[in-house]
Amino acid sequence: MIEKIKINTNGQGLYEITNLVSSKLDNSGILNGICIVYIKHTSASLIIQENADPSAKKDLENWLNRLVPEKDTLFTHTSEGPDDMPSHIKAILTQVSISIPIVHGELTLGTWQGIYLWEHRKAPHDRSVLLKFLEG
Amino acid sequence: MIEKIKINTNGQGLYEITNLVSSKLDNSGILNGICIVYIKHTSASLIIQENADPSAKKDLENWLNRLVPEKDTLFTHTSEGPDDMPSHIKAILTQVSISIPIVHGELTLGTWQGIYLWEHRKAPHDRSVLLKFLEG
Amino acid sequence: MIEKIKINTNGQGLYEITNLVSSKLDNSGILNGICIVYIKHTSASLIIQENADPSAKKDLENWLNRLVPEKDTLFTHTSEGPDDMPSHIKAILTQVSISIPIVHGELTLGTWQGIYLWEHRKAPHDRSVLLKFLEG
Repeated sequence: MIEKIKINTNGQGLYEITNLVSSKLDNSGILNGICIVYIKHTSASLIIQENADPSAKKDLENWLNRLVPEKDTLFTHTSEGPDDMPSHIKAILTQVSISIPIVHGELTLGTWQGIYLWEHRKAPHDRSVLLKFLEG
Repeated sequence: MIEKIKINTNGQGLYEITNLVSSKLDNSGILNGICIVYIKHTSASLIIQENADPSAKKDLENWLNRLVPEKDTLFTHTSEGPDDMPSHIKAILTQVSISIPIVHGELTLGTWQGIYLWEHRKAPHDRSVLLKFLEG
Repeated sequence: MIEKIKINTNGQGLYEITNLVSSKLDNSGILNGICIVYIKHTSASLIIQENADPSAKKDLENWLNRLVPEKDTLFTHTSEGPDDMPSHIKAILTQVSISIPIVHGELTLGTWQGIYLWEHRKAPHDRSVLLKFLEG
Protein backbone atom coordinates (compact mmCIF):
# COMPACT_ATOMS: atom_id res chain seq x y z
CA MET A 1 0.00 0.00 0.00
CA ILE A 2 1.48 3.29 -1.14
CA GLU A 3 0.12 6.78 -0.55
CA LYS A 4 1.29 10.15 -1.82
CA ILE A 5 1.17 13.44 0.07
CA LYS A 6 1.48 16.71 -1.81
CA ILE A 7 2.89 19.69 0.09
CA ASN A 8 2.95 23.07 -1.58
CA THR A 9 5.57 24.99 0.36
CA ASN A 10 5.84 28.76 0.68
CA GLY A 11 9.63 28.58 0.61
CA GLN A 12 12.31 27.72 3.15
CA GLY A 13 11.21 26.29 6.48
CA LEU A 14 9.87 23.33 8.45
CA TYR A 15 6.36 22.08 7.58
CA GLU A 16 4.78 19.62 9.97
CA ILE A 17 3.16 16.65 8.22
CA THR A 18 2.40 14.44 11.23
CA ASN A 19 -1.37 14.73 10.89
CA LEU A 20 -1.25 14.05 7.16
CA VAL A 21 0.72 10.85 7.77
CA SER A 22 -1.53 9.74 10.66
CA SER A 23 -4.61 10.34 8.58
CA LYS A 24 -3.32 8.16 5.73
CA LEU A 25 -2.45 5.47 8.24
CA ASP A 26 -5.99 5.59 9.64
CA ASN A 27 -7.39 5.12 6.14
CA SER A 28 -5.11 2.17 5.49
CA GLY A 29 -6.62 0.11 8.30
CA ILE A 30 -3.17 -1.28 9.16
CA LEU A 31 -2.81 -2.18 12.84
CA ASN A 32 0.79 -3.39 13.07
CA GLY A 33 3.80 -2.88 10.82
CA ILE A 34 5.94 0.00 9.64
CA CYS A 35 5.45 3.29 7.84
CA ILE A 36 8.24 4.46 5.53
CA VAL A 37 8.13 8.18 4.85
CA TYR A 38 10.10 8.95 1.67
CA ILE A 39 10.75 12.32 -0.01
CA LYS A 40 11.39 12.39 -3.76
CA HIS A 41 13.59 15.49 -3.78
CA THR A 42 17.21 16.55 -3.36
CA SER A 43 16.64 20.10 -2.10
CA ALA A 44 14.01 19.30 0.54
CA SER A 45 14.25 16.63 3.23
CA LEU A 46 12.63 15.01 6.28
CA ILE A 47 13.25 15.17 10.02
CA ILE A 48 11.50 14.13 13.20
CA GLN A 49 11.74 16.85 15.80
CA GLU A 50 10.16 18.59 18.75
CA ASN A 51 6.72 19.90 17.89
CA ALA A 52 5.85 21.66 21.13
CA ASP A 53 7.78 24.93 21.16
CA PRO A 54 8.05 27.04 17.96
CA SER A 55 11.34 28.52 19.21
CA ALA A 56 13.07 25.14 18.76
CA LYS A 57 11.96 25.08 15.13
CA LYS A 58 13.22 28.61 14.53
CA ASP A 59 16.58 27.89 16.15
CA LEU A 60 17.03 24.74 14.05
CA GLU A 61 16.41 26.69 10.86
CA ASN A 62 18.73 29.52 11.82
CA TRP A 63 21.49 27.18 12.95
CA LEU A 64 21.46 25.18 9.71
CA ASN A 65 21.35 28.36 7.64
CA ARG A 66 24.45 29.57 9.40
CA LEU A 67 26.25 26.23 9.01
CA VAL A 68 25.51 26.17 5.28
CA PRO A 69 25.35 29.79 4.10
CA GLU A 70 24.69 30.96 0.57
CA LYS A 71 27.39 32.58 -1.57
CA ASP A 72 30.11 30.31 -0.23
CA THR A 73 33.08 30.85 -2.54
CA LEU A 74 33.60 27.07 -2.53
CA PHE A 75 30.42 26.52 -4.58
CA THR A 76 30.58 26.02 -8.35
CA HIS A 77 27.02 24.65 -8.70
CA THR A 78 25.40 28.08 -8.77
CA SER A 79 23.43 28.26 -12.03
CA GLU A 80 20.13 27.44 -10.28
CA GLY A 81 20.52 30.24 -7.72
CA PRO A 82 22.49 30.90 -4.53
CA ASP A 83 20.15 28.78 -2.39
CA ASP A 84 20.47 25.66 -4.56
CA MET A 85 23.78 24.18 -3.43
CA PRO A 86 23.10 24.93 0.28
CA SER A 87 19.80 23.07 -0.22
CA HIS A 88 21.53 19.92 -1.46
CA ILE A 89 23.96 20.00 1.46
CA LYS A 90 21.19 20.52 4.02
CA ALA A 91 19.31 17.62 2.46
CA ILE A 92 22.20 15.17 2.85
CA LEU A 93 22.72 16.24 6.49
CA THR A 94 19.11 15.34 7.28
CA GLN A 95 16.86 12.49 6.01
CA VAL A 96 15.44 11.31 2.69
CA SER A 97 13.62 8.38 4.33
CA ILE A 98 12.37 7.63 7.86
CA SER A 99 10.90 4.32 9.06
CA ILE A 100 8.41 4.41 11.94
CA PRO A 101 6.87 1.37 13.67
CA ILE A 102 3.07 1.08 13.72
CA VAL A 103 1.44 -0.42 16.84
CA HIS A 104 -2.32 -0.76 17.41
CA GLY A 105 -2.97 1.34 14.31
CA GLU A 106 -0.82 4.26 15.43
CA LEU A 107 2.63 5.63 14.68
CA THR A 108 4.93 5.07 17.68
CA LEU A 109 6.02 8.72 17.83
CA GLY A 110 7.32 9.94 21.18
CA THR A 111 5.35 12.55 23.12
CA TRP A 112 7.22 15.49 21.61
CA GLN A 113 7.99 14.06 18.18
CA GLY A 114 6.53 15.51 15.00
CA ILE A 115 7.34 14.61 11.38
CA TYR A 116 8.51 17.55 9.28
CA LEU A 117 9.22 18.27 5.66
CA TRP A 118 12.11 20.71 5.49
CA GLU A 119 11.94 22.94 2.43
CA HIS A 120 15.45 24.23 1.76
CA ARG A 121 14.70 26.37 -1.31
CA LYS A 122 13.58 29.97 -0.87
CA ALA A 123 10.92 29.89 -3.57
CA PRO A 124 7.64 27.97 -3.10
CA HIS A 125 7.82 24.38 -4.39
CA ASP A 126 5.38 21.52 -4.87
CA ARG A 127 6.82 18.58 -2.95
CA SER A 128 5.90 14.90 -3.02
CA VAL A 129 6.22 12.62 -0.02
CA LEU A 130 5.48 8.90 -0.33
CA LEU A 131 4.12 6.76 2.50
CA LYS A 132 4.66 3.03 2.27
CA PHE A 133 2.78 0.94 4.81
CA LEU A 134 3.97 -2.61 5.41
CA GLU A 135 2.01 -4.99 7.65
CA GLY A 136 3.70 -7.44 9.92
CA MET B 1 6.54 -8.01 16.62
CA ILE B 2 7.58 -5.00 18.65
CA GLU B 3 10.03 -4.85 21.53
CA LYS B 4 11.01 -1.98 23.79
CA ILE B 5 14.46 -1.34 25.25
CA LYS B 6 14.86 0.97 28.23
CA ILE B 7 18.20 2.75 28.63
CA ASN B 8 18.82 4.83 31.71
CA THR B 9 21.62 7.16 30.68
CA ASN B 10 24.09 8.87 33.00
CA GLY B 11 24.10 11.97 30.83
CA GLN B 12 25.77 12.98 27.57
CA GLY B 13 27.59 10.26 25.63
CA LEU B 14 27.41 7.21 23.39
CA TYR B 15 25.82 4.05 24.86
CA GLU B 16 26.26 0.84 22.91
CA ILE B 17 23.03 -1.16 22.56
CA THR B 18 24.17 -3.82 20.05
CA ASN B 19 23.89 -6.70 22.50
CA LEU B 20 20.47 -5.59 23.71
CA VAL B 21 19.19 -5.53 20.12
CA SER B 22 20.79 -8.89 19.24
CA SER B 23 19.32 -10.48 22.32
CA LYS B 24 15.80 -9.31 21.45
CA LEU B 25 16.32 -10.63 17.93
CA ASP B 26 17.35 -14.03 19.30
CA ASN B 27 14.20 -14.17 21.40
CA SER B 28 12.04 -13.28 18.40
CA GLY B 29 13.04 -16.39 16.49
CA ILE B 30 13.07 -14.42 13.23
CA LEU B 31 15.54 -15.80 10.68
CA ASN B 32 15.17 -13.40 7.75
CA GLY B 33 13.78 -9.90 7.49
CA ILE B 34 14.60 -6.47 8.87
CA CYS B 35 15.03 -4.84 12.25
CA ILE B 36 13.96 -1.21 12.61
CA VAL B 37 15.59 0.54 15.56
CA TYR B 38 13.54 3.62 16.49
CA ILE B 39 14.15 6.17 19.26
CA LYS B 40 11.17 8.07 20.71
CA HIS B 41 13.05 11.23 21.65
CA THR B 42 14.17 14.54 20.18
CA SER B 43 17.24 15.15 22.36
CA ALA B 44 18.80 11.68 22.03
CA SER B 45 19.46 9.80 18.79
CA LEU B 46 20.90 6.71 17.13
CA ILE B 47 24.06 5.99 15.14
CA ILE B 48 25.95 2.96 13.89
CA GLN B 49 29.64 3.43 14.43
CA GLU B 50 33.00 1.80 15.11
CA ASN B 51 32.92 -0.20 18.34
CA ALA B 52 36.54 -1.31 18.51
CA ASP B 53 38.56 1.70 19.67
CA PRO B 54 37.20 3.94 22.49
CA SER B 55 39.22 6.88 21.11
CA ALA B 56 36.95 7.03 18.03
CA LYS B 57 33.91 7.34 20.30
CA LYS B 58 35.54 10.12 22.33
CA ASP B 59 36.58 12.05 19.21
CA LEU B 60 33.06 11.80 17.78
CA GLU B 61 31.57 13.25 20.95
CA ASN B 62 34.11 16.06 21.19
CA TRP B 63 33.78 16.96 17.53
CA LEU B 64 29.97 17.22 17.67
CA ASN B 65 30.14 19.20 20.91
CA ARG B 66 32.43 21.69 19.21
CA LEU B 67 30.22 21.91 16.09
CA VAL B 68 27.12 22.58 18.21
CA PRO B 69 28.27 24.40 21.34
CA GLU B 70 26.06 25.59 24.16
CA LYS B 71 25.36 29.28 24.80
CA ASP B 72 25.26 30.10 21.11
CA THR B 73 23.81 33.61 20.92
CA LEU B 74 21.64 32.42 18.03
CA PHE B 75 19.52 30.25 20.35
CA THR B 76 16.19 31.50 21.69
CA HIS B 77 14.93 28.06 22.87
CA THR B 78 16.83 28.20 26.17
CA SER B 79 14.22 27.78 28.91
CA GLU B 80 15.03 24.07 29.34
CA GLY B 81 18.74 24.70 29.84
CA PRO B 82 21.81 25.50 27.73
CA ASP B 83 22.20 21.88 26.54
CA ASP B 84 18.64 21.59 25.25
CA MET B 85 18.82 23.32 21.86
CA PRO B 86 22.24 21.77 21.02
CA SER B 87 20.63 18.39 21.79
CA HIS B 88 17.85 18.92 19.24
CA ILE B 89 20.37 19.96 16.60
CA LYS B 90 22.64 16.99 17.27
CA ALA B 91 19.61 14.71 17.05
CA ILE B 92 18.61 15.94 13.58
CA LEU B 93 22.21 15.58 12.33
CA THR B 94 22.17 11.89 13.33
CA GLN B 95 19.40 9.24 13.19
CA VAL B 96 15.95 8.72 14.70
CA SER B 97 15.50 5.37 12.91
CA ILE B 98 17.87 2.78 11.42
CA SER B 99 16.86 -0.29 9.40
CA ILE B 100 19.15 -3.32 9.47
CA PRO B 101 18.70 -6.51 7.42
CA ILE B 102 18.41 -9.84 9.28
CA VAL B 103 20.00 -12.91 7.68
CA HIS B 104 20.10 -16.40 9.25
CA GLY B 105 18.80 -14.96 12.52
CA GLU B 106 21.50 -12.31 12.83
CA LEU B 107 21.82 -8.58 12.23
CA THR B 108 24.02 -7.96 9.18
CA LEU B 109 26.31 -5.54 11.00
CA GLY B 110 29.80 -5.11 9.56
CA THR B 111 32.83 -6.31 11.56
CA TRP B 112 33.39 -2.96 13.25
CA GLN B 113 29.81 -1.74 13.45
CA GLY B 114 28.02 -1.22 16.75
CA ILE B 115 24.58 0.34 17.38
CA TYR B 116 24.64 3.30 19.75
CA LEU B 117 22.16 5.46 21.56
CA TRP B 118 23.55 8.99 21.73
CA GLU B 119 22.38 10.86 24.80
CA HIS B 120 22.72 14.58 24.08
CA ARG B 121 21.44 15.95 27.39
CA LYS B 122 23.86 16.40 30.30
CA ALA B 123 21.51 15.09 32.97
CA PRO B 124 20.63 11.37 33.24
CA HIS B 125 17.51 10.44 31.27
CA ASP B 126 15.35 7.33 30.85
CA ARG B 127 15.26 6.61 27.13
CA SER B 128 13.00 4.28 25.12
CA VAL B 129 14.13 2.53 21.96
CA LEU B 130 11.67 0.44 19.95
CA LEU B 131 12.67 -2.59 17.89
CA LYS B 132 10.33 -3.66 15.13
CA PHE B 133 11.10 -7.01 13.52
CA LEU B 134 9.55 -7.73 10.13
CA GLU B 135 9.90 -11.16 8.53
CA GLY B 136 10.38 -11.60 4.83
CA MET C 1 15.59 -11.83 -0.27
CA ILE C 2 19.04 -10.39 0.30
CA GLU C 3 21.58 -9.29 -2.31
CA LYS C 4 25.12 -8.05 -1.94
CA ILE C 5 26.83 -5.41 -4.08
CA LYS C 6 30.59 -5.13 -4.09
CA ILE C 7 32.10 -1.72 -4.89
CA ASN C 8 35.85 -1.40 -5.23
CA THR C 9 36.48 2.30 -4.69
CA ASN C 10 39.46 4.27 -5.94
CA GLY C 11 39.50 6.37 -2.78
CA GLN C 12 37.51 9.33 -1.50
CA GLY C 13 34.45 10.36 -3.45
CA LEU C 14 30.84 9.69 -4.43
CA TYR C 15 30.12 6.51 -6.41
CA GLU C 16 26.69 6.19 -7.97
CA ILE C 17 25.11 2.76 -7.42
CA THR C 18 21.56 3.46 -8.67
CA ASN C 19 21.86 1.14 -11.67
CA LEU C 20 23.34 -1.67 -9.59
CA VAL C 21 20.42 -1.45 -7.17
CA SER C 22 17.80 -1.24 -9.95
CA SER C 23 19.33 -4.22 -11.69
CA LYS C 24 19.14 -6.37 -8.54
CA LEU C 25 15.53 -5.25 -8.07
CA ASP C 26 14.72 -6.33 -11.64
CA ASN C 27 16.20 -9.76 -10.97
CA SER C 28 14.18 -10.13 -7.78
CA GLY C 29 10.88 -9.95 -9.59
CA ILE C 30 9.37 -7.94 -6.72
CA LEU C 31 6.61 -5.57 -7.83
CA ASN C 32 5.63 -3.83 -4.59
CA GLY C 33 7.40 -3.41 -1.29
CA ILE C 34 10.55 -1.74 -0.02
CA CYS C 35 14.25 -1.87 -0.71
CA ILE C 36 16.62 -1.33 2.21
CA VAL C 37 20.10 -0.28 1.16
CA TYR C 38 22.57 -0.99 3.96
CA ILE C 39 26.33 -0.36 4.10
CA LYS C 40 28.47 -2.54 6.37
CA HIS C 41 31.17 0.06 7.08
CA THR C 42 31.96 2.92 9.45
CA SER C 43 34.21 4.97 7.14
CA ALA C 44 31.98 4.91 4.05
CA SER C 45 28.28 5.78 3.92
CA LEU C 46 25.20 6.25 1.74
CA ILE C 47 23.30 9.26 0.45
CA ILE C 48 20.61 10.00 -2.11
CA GLN C 49 21.46 13.09 -4.07
CA GLU C 50 21.20 14.95 -7.35
CA ASN C 51 22.64 12.91 -10.19
CA ALA C 52 22.28 15.40 -13.01
CA ASP C 53 25.07 17.95 -12.61
CA PRO C 54 28.61 16.79 -11.65
CA SER C 55 29.29 20.21 -10.08
CA ALA C 56 26.80 19.47 -7.28
CA LYS C 57 28.69 16.27 -6.46
CA LYS C 58 32.01 18.09 -6.41
CA ASP C 59 30.67 20.88 -4.16
CA LEU C 60 29.21 18.34 -1.73
CA GLU C 61 32.57 16.60 -1.41
CA ASN C 62 34.50 19.83 -0.98
CA TRP C 63 32.04 21.22 1.55
CA LEU C 64 32.15 18.12 3.74
CA ASN C 65 35.95 17.97 3.52
CA ARG C 66 36.11 21.52 4.78
CA LEU C 67 33.61 20.87 7.60
CA VAL C 68 35.59 17.84 8.77
CA PRO C 69 39.25 18.48 7.92
CA GLU C 70 42.15 16.15 8.63
CA LYS C 71 44.77 16.92 11.27
CA ASP C 72 42.25 18.47 13.62
CA THR C 73 44.10 18.86 16.93
CA LEU C 74 40.97 17.55 18.67
CA PHE C 75 41.50 14.04 17.25
CA THR C 76 43.17 11.31 19.32
CA HIS C 77 42.07 8.39 17.09
CA THR C 78 44.90 8.87 14.60
CA SER C 79 46.75 5.54 14.46
CA GLU C 80 44.98 4.48 11.25
CA GLY C 81 45.92 7.67 9.40
CA PRO C 82 44.80 11.32 9.27
CA ASP C 83 41.75 10.51 7.09
CA ASP C 84 40.36 7.87 9.46
CA MET C 85 38.65 9.96 12.14
CA PRO C 86 37.20 12.44 9.60
CA SER C 87 35.79 9.37 7.78
CA HIS C 88 33.91 8.18 10.87
CA ILE C 89 32.48 11.66 11.45
CA LYS C 90 31.39 12.03 7.82
CA ALA C 91 29.74 8.61 8.04
CA ILE C 92 27.60 9.53 11.06
CA LEU C 93 26.53 12.82 9.40
CA THR C 94 25.18 10.85 6.40
CA GLN C 95 23.41 7.45 6.17
CA VAL C 96 24.20 3.83 7.00
CA SER C 97 20.78 2.66 5.78
CA ILE C 98 18.16 4.04 3.38
CA SER C 99 14.68 2.59 2.76
CA ILE C 100 13.06 3.17 -0.63
CA PRO C 101 9.52 2.17 -1.61
CA ILE C 102 9.09 -0.15 -4.63
CA VAL C 103 6.06 0.43 -6.88
CA HIS C 104 5.30 -1.52 -10.07
CA GLY C 105 8.73 -3.14 -9.90
CA GLU C 106 10.65 0.13 -9.70
CA LEU C 107 12.34 2.22 -7.03
CA THR C 108 10.33 5.38 -6.38
CA LEU C 109 13.31 7.69 -6.83
CA GLY C 110 12.53 11.27 -7.78
CA THR C 111 13.58 12.58 -11.18
CA TRP C 112 16.94 13.89 -9.99
CA GLN C 113 17.66 11.36 -7.26
CA GLY C 114 20.56 8.94 -7.47
CA ILE C 115 21.84 6.52 -4.79
CA TYR C 116 25.49 6.99 -3.90
CA LEU C 117 28.12 5.21 -1.88
CA TRP C 118 30.37 7.82 -0.30
CA GLU C 119 33.90 6.56 0.21
CA HIS C 120 35.50 8.70 2.92
CA ARG C 121 38.94 7.04 3.01
CA LYS C 122 41.66 8.24 0.64
CA ALA C 123 42.96 4.79 -0.22
CA PRO C 124 40.97 2.39 -2.41
CA HIS C 125 38.69 0.06 -0.43
CA ASP C 126 36.46 -2.92 -1.19
CA ARG C 127 33.02 -2.01 0.11
CA SER C 128 29.94 -4.17 0.69
CA VAL C 129 26.40 -2.87 0.34
CA LEU C 130 23.45 -5.11 1.19
CA LEU C 131 20.05 -4.86 -0.48
CA LYS C 132 17.09 -6.29 1.35
CA PHE C 133 13.85 -6.51 -0.63
CA LEU C 134 10.62 -6.93 1.30
CA GLU C 135 7.33 -7.55 -0.52
CA GLY C 136 4.10 -6.05 0.65
